[in-house]
Amino acid sequence: MPGRSVSKQTLVRLPAYLHFLQSLSGEERRYVSATAVAEALGLNDVVVRKDLAAVSSAGRPKVGYGRAELIAELEHFLGYDNSQDAILVGAGKLGRALLSYEGFPQYGLNILAAFDADPRVCGTEEGGKKILPMEKLSNLCRRMKVRIGIITVPGEHAQKVCDALIESGVLAVWNFASVHLNVPEGVLVQNENMAVSLAILSNHLKERFSTK
Amino acid sequence: MPGRSVSKQTLVRLPAYLHFLQSLSGEERRYVSATAVAEALGLNDVVVRKDLAAVSSAGRPKVGYGRAELIAELEHFLGYDNSQDAILVGAGKLGRALLSYEGFPQYGLNILAAFDADPRVCGTEEGGKKILPMEKLSNLCRRMKVRIGIITVPGEHAQKVCDALIESGVLAVWNFASVHLNVPEGVLVQNENMAVSLAILSNHLKERFSTK
Repeated sequence: MPGRSVSKQTLVRLPAYLHFLQSLSGEERRYVSATAVAEALGLNDVVVRKDLAAVSSAGRPKVGYGRAELIAELEHFLGYDNSQDAILVGAGKLGRALLSYEGFPQYGLNILAAFDADPRVCGTEEGGKKILPMEKLSNLCRRMKVRIGIITVPGEHAQKVCDALIESGVLAVWNFASVHLNVPEGVLVQNENMAVSLAILSNHLKERFSTK
Repeated sequence: MPGRSVSKQTLVRLPAYLHFLQSLSGEERRYVSATAVAEALGLNDVVVRKDLAAVSSAGRPKVGYGRAELIAELEHFLGYDNSQDAILVGAGKLGRALLSYEGFPQYGLNILAAFDADPRVCGTEEGGKKILPMEKLSNLCRRMKVRIGIITVPGEHAQKVCDALIESGVLAVWNFASVHLNVPEGVLVQNENMAVSLAILSNHLKERFSTK
């Protein structure tokens, strides 16, 4: 249902629902209930029921959701069936890993090209994607109407790269640098912040051992 | 303050505070107020004040926090000053990128070794870390009392790897596979889920264009 909006809390759970539904083998599960999804994922029943109701109107009392239909609705809602072009800046080890990652097309992400400030890597390829000099970034973004920029440069260069992306029309930034980025209103930054994840892991171990 | 516990909402903001404080140049900012931190990071004043009060008792009215002292307190709270050993399973492109990432020690993470099921990569090294066969995983984890396991295998193998890690004493799993992992109580899974991030980016673009 394009145009419908859901909370971020709901949004982050939808990919897990989709993955679970896809993992079920065909004929045996033509219909799936919210309860079954909740049990499999260790979530609260009521939460799952509300989430699914927000993206689908195909649920039937006592029967549940048609599995194929719900999968299609989730894929559509998540934009997986409608590929978005992106570019990546910073062709270091992490950048190259992302360029070679074969799973993005299934999530509707198409990386057109990468950019790097180092002339030694410009002109090479990774995962079939060209690595181009920074000077070409703006032109390519504007020409191809690229709206997603992926930042995999070292932290000290991230804000400058972010500014250049926004200047070139990017509206959503996927930030792998462990720094805070300032962006104008209307631009989204999705942080893939390893420092935050590590803090969560470390805190868990601390609590785990302090209660022993 | 070890042993103090904060909400997850607070915890995820602490690395950003730390990074901001570290980015300030020395003498000019011996003291920093919660308001200054809030302004720099685009956060609410009250939120920052409460967060900082939860990890530090060094704030002084009208003066603020001693910068060096607050940095030390945040580093300690986040466990960055107390290195945790980890092992990584799955030496593909993403796994190798993480093995080579030089930023982990500063966050208190020390990857001891990697494991892979492919005999062709076993015995090689990446980022100075040995890649070992899966058969050696349990022994090494137990012997070194490893509590953190990093999963970078394809989704279909992730649960099996996760079970093996927990069996070997791991209490915190950093999961880069885009699948839900079932773990017993007391074990934490921190998901680095690209599918979720992409859903958030895509949803932003959808909302952005539907309101135009």
